[in-house]
Amino acid sequence: MEIVIIGSGNVASVLGRKFKAAGHTIAQVYSRNASAASHLAYEWDTESTNYKSLIYQKADVYLIAVPDDAIDEVVNELKLPGKVVAHTAASVSRDILKDVSPHHGVFYPLQSLRKEMPVTTEIPMFIDASDDKSRRILEELATSISAEKVSSAPDSERLKFHVAAVVVSNFTNHLYALAEQYCKKEGISFKQLLPLIEETALRIRTISPKEAQTGPAVRHDRDTIQKHIELLKDDPALHNIYVLMTESIQQFK
Amino acid sequence: MEIVIIGSGNVASVLGRKFKAAGHTIAQVYSRNASAASHLAYEWDTESTNYKSLIYQKADVYLIAVPDDAIDEVVNELKLPGKVVAHTAASVSRDILKDVSPHHGVFYPLQSLRKEMPVTTEIPMFIDASDDKSRRILEELATSISAEKVSSAPDSERLKFHVAAVVVSNFTNHLYALAEQYCKKEGISFKQLLPLIEETALRIRTISPKEAQTGPAVRHDRDTIQKHIELLKDDPALHNIYVLMTESIQQFK
Repeated sequence: MEIVIIGSGNVASVLGRKFKAAGHTIAQVYSRNASAASHLAYEWDTESTNYKSLIYQKADVYLIAVPDDAIDEVVNELKLPGKVVAHTAASVSRDILKDVSPHHGVFYPLQSLRKEMPVTTEIPMFIDASDDKSRRILEELATSISAEKVSSAPDSERLKFHVAAVVVSNFTNHLYALAEQYCKKEGISFKQLLPLIEETALRIRTISPKEAQTGPAVRHDRDTIQKHIELLKDDPALHNIYVLMTESIQQFK
Repeated sequence: MEIVIIGSGNVASVLGRKFKAAGHTIAQVYSRNASAASHLAYEWDTESTNYKSLIYQKADVYLIAVPDDAIDEVVNELKLPGKVVAHTAASVSRDILKDVSPHHGVFYPLQSLRKEMPVTTEIPMFIDASDDKSRRILEELATSISAEKVSSAPDSERLKFHVAAVVVSNFTNHLYALAEQYCKKEGISFKQLLPLIEETALRIRTISPKEAQTGPAVRHDRDTIQKHIELLKDDPALHNIYVLMTESIQQFK
């Protein structure tokens, strides 16, 4: 397929690279950030523009991969009648694209994307579409870059996946960040925790997290919890989280 | 070396298997749980007992791998003068073993251990010791089962590692469990989150969690946060954690 990519950040970079690897053509990169756009265009052997009026009109699919709050501005006065147009945002309605084209949809990658990641990273894909034409084309495109079955997810379901993703990824990463900060302050090596972090993430492929729960909280080991809370008395952020998470683990059914 | 293993749970099982794989001899397994002890003894081609009075007296090392609050009972009236004795607990003082032998120490695996895990799982090892003899033997034993350099960690430092381990493993797993429960309730597939969970854990090998932080909280994306909080109004546990973690991410420096 011939694809125009709108945006030049992490999502645009990773998806564009996957499209290229799957044999598609990137017809153009459009971004307000001219330098980032030309950088990607160079990588993908195509052209770039930072003028909305110069967006190439003859591609099969237009993918809007910009921050959620920038979609409004991008679609303002954008008309691509007859073309398939999709955005990549979990928490933004499909309808935001309805004045751009009758064939509009969503192309949501349920993964934390960074420019630097290998092109082989697994990305579960969720599609939403206004009509058969956009559904067929977005599904085909998603299937071409995903090893797994592509799922459908309307606005309400994507929002739920996004909440769950925030919990297992953003919040988890924040726990890593708090632990790293604590280790630095106490002069111990955060790196020594990496095998444990990886084991914790990987084991839930084989047992459910509910069964995998271990530690002083679930054992109701009050002595250890008390020692830990005492140790955290000078670190209010971690102290509060320790207390709340311990309670939440103990109340979990 | 010739080793007596005291305990028959996850820690005893995994360490014993590593010792066997490294070419050591398990002289005996002692546990109050006779059936679990004989099961391990069968696997390691050795004998087992559930009588403290029958503990084999001629091994090089005695490893006490029982729950923290069971160590007291195990060491009561246990005398192994001249032998090296160590427990595996992060948050229990080395001193608890001082009446068992003058050569006592700690052999702490900084990993979440389950009987079912592969013998190749990476386990950072931390050693504490009362004297040169116990230090030399425990270091040698740890080095034989660990790919990485073995570290020293006295009581106070092990306790700090344990706090950090609880945060990055037990609390992280609880977030996974809450997300799984939420997905079930909402009829969406938790399995679709696994690639994201793994990417989040693995990427901090290359960038620090502080730099890796993404999501609506760190972007101060109030619209999305509001939509998510609204969606969680019937799930008080997850709602509270969502609010606290979002605040904590925004205040993190």
